[in-house]
Amino acid sequence: MNKIVECVPNFSEGRDLDKVEQIVSAFRGVRGVNLLSYEPDADYNRVVVTVMGEPEAVKEAVINSVKIATELIDLRNHTGEHSRMGASDVVPFIPIKNMTIEECVEIAKEVGERIADELAIPVFLYESAATCPERVNLAKIRKGQFEKMAEKLQEPNWKPDFGESQPHPSAGVTAVGARNPLFAFNIDLDTADIEIANKIAKAIRHSSGGFRYIKAGGVYLKERNHVQVTMNITDYTKTAVYRVFETVKMEAKRYGVNVIGSEIIGLVPMASLIDTAEYYLKVRDFTMDKVIETRLMESLGE
Amino acid sequence: MNKIVECVPNFSEGRDLDKVEQIVSAFRGVRGVNLLSYEPDADYNRVVVTVMGEPEAVKEAVINSVKIATELIDLRNHTGEHSRMGASDVVPFIPIKNMTIEECVEIAKEVGERIADELAIPVFLYESAATCPERVNLAKIRKGQFEKMAEKLQEPNWKPDFGESQPHPSAGVTAVGARNPLFAFNIDLDTADIEIANKIAKAIRHSSGGFRYIKAGGVYLKERNHVQVTMNITDYTKTAVYRVFETVKMEAKRYGVNVIGSEIIGLVPMASLIDTAEYYLKVRDFTMDKVIETRLMESLGE
Repeated sequence: MNKIVECVPNFSEGRDLDKVEQIVSAFRGVRGVNLLSYEPDADYNRVVVTVMGEPEAVKEAVINSVKIATELIDLRNHTGEHSRMGASDVVPFIPIKNMTIEECVEIAKEVGERIADELAIPVFLYESAATCPERVNLAKIRKGQFEKMAEKLQEPNWKPDFGESQPHPSAGVTAVGARNPLFAFNIDLDTADIEIANKIAKAIRHSSGGFRYIKAGGVYLKERNHVQVTMNITDYTKTAVYRVFETVKMEAKRYGVNVIGSEIIGLVPMASLIDTAEYYLKVRDFTMDKVIETRLMESLGE
Repeated sequence: MNKIVECVPNFSEGRDLDKVEQIVSAFRGVRGVNLLSYEPDADYNRVVVTVMGEPEAVKEAVINSVKIATELIDLRNHTGEHSRMGASDVVPFIPIKNMTIEECVEIAKEVGERIADELAIPVFLYESAATCPERVNLAKIRKGQFEKMAEKLQEPNWKPDFGESQPHPSAGVTAVGARNPLFAFNIDLDTADIEIANKIAKAIRHSSGGFRYIKAGGVYLKERNHVQVTMNITDYTKTAVYRVFETVKMEAKRYGVNVIGSEIIGLVPMASLIDTAEYYLKVRDFTMDKVIETRLMESLGE
């Protein structure tokens, strides 16, 4: 059974495309590693890279990319719209095939330790890899950004999980974590009333009493002149996509509002949508084994 | 862009498992060929093999398997519940990835010609590869079975597409074809009245005025004491799964009957079910590119 892990490292360079190419070159032509996408953003001055492949190969390639980023990026001269605390800002590992989140936590720990040892960059573990509840949320770790990290690391609560209590002079601090694949989903309503979107978001999200694996909010889309409930399903295997969709429809009804469409953002796992089709078609005894692509992936990977 | 073809050859041996193993050995350990399943059936005295892979590699492996079957199977001593006319009875090619049905027709023609030339077995092309309308339907070609083939091949209408007008003495005649992936789908109704299932089947199937790519019938399931509309969707890209499902629900309503479940038989392409999820979730601008498995298949295949 071949294992496949995804990694979505974010590097703090989105303007100098030559440097971006040098960083992503760590993922090119490496056996067992597939570079799926990289999107440099000049406003953010940041690049989000998506790679997948065999855990050992991905691990090595990620460490190489962090090495290159450490050599090329100097945060002392860095500006951009996105908050950041490191040249290699955040490195999440995501289980894709024949892997558990626990195995990704192990990978995050190994990679974190090596970044600290080999590059003298302090590392925080976050999300499922976090070593205490205050470190689950990346935003809390990154608060203060690169400029305040020297100070923050002196606080007893903010001793890094790996490395010294002192940022790397030019590359700052890196967060390494493990999380499940996200399903980023927006549902459009036939109203321009943001209050209605906010109320529905509140009804479905975990923080205010909704589903365990939903983060949600309301958004008004000026161009289309209607509102949207925007959400991340952080574990679609436990909070099913169709269940959330039907709940939004049901809540919208009390305001006399209809769901008129939806958007899926970024890459999603096949199983999240096939699970949805199974629900609506009332399929009995279905398994992902019955999907040709599952069989192909197994045999291609052998 | 790597191409993937499926082939589902049916061989007339389901009892002597040693012979079955020798036949499927043609698909084992061959670079570019993946043996997905083979199911010998003693009552039928037949084995259905499912393989996928690179067109050239699959083509060669299929021809090898037909050679082995020709050496091992003698239809003069063959009995079984399933109709058959050849040791290698039927060889359909199915486009799976980055291929068109036309390309599968080309493969069917090449394979058919080589079976006739190299093994002296007459070949009929069927389904999308058929050279005239009477040869589209396999049942019509096979009518009379092995025992009547010598006679049938003398009729001017039944001159084979490749090879002589005389069956191979022990291996008979082979049908080689191209078809789209089937979506075999059964919908359960909360009634035991077979007439209702038959009427709904009639309403949805092509032959009596229904959807272009539906073959359907009614079945009574004794053990469960309810009826089922059983169907093949022969091109789900044109007759969508959700559309047929909703139509069955709608027709059932006029009899006061509900759809209580469904079954998907055999392997189905991911896109058939994701298309269904897209419909029910009202997703805008979705493409299969957004599915992780699509990206993985592309990169694994490179």
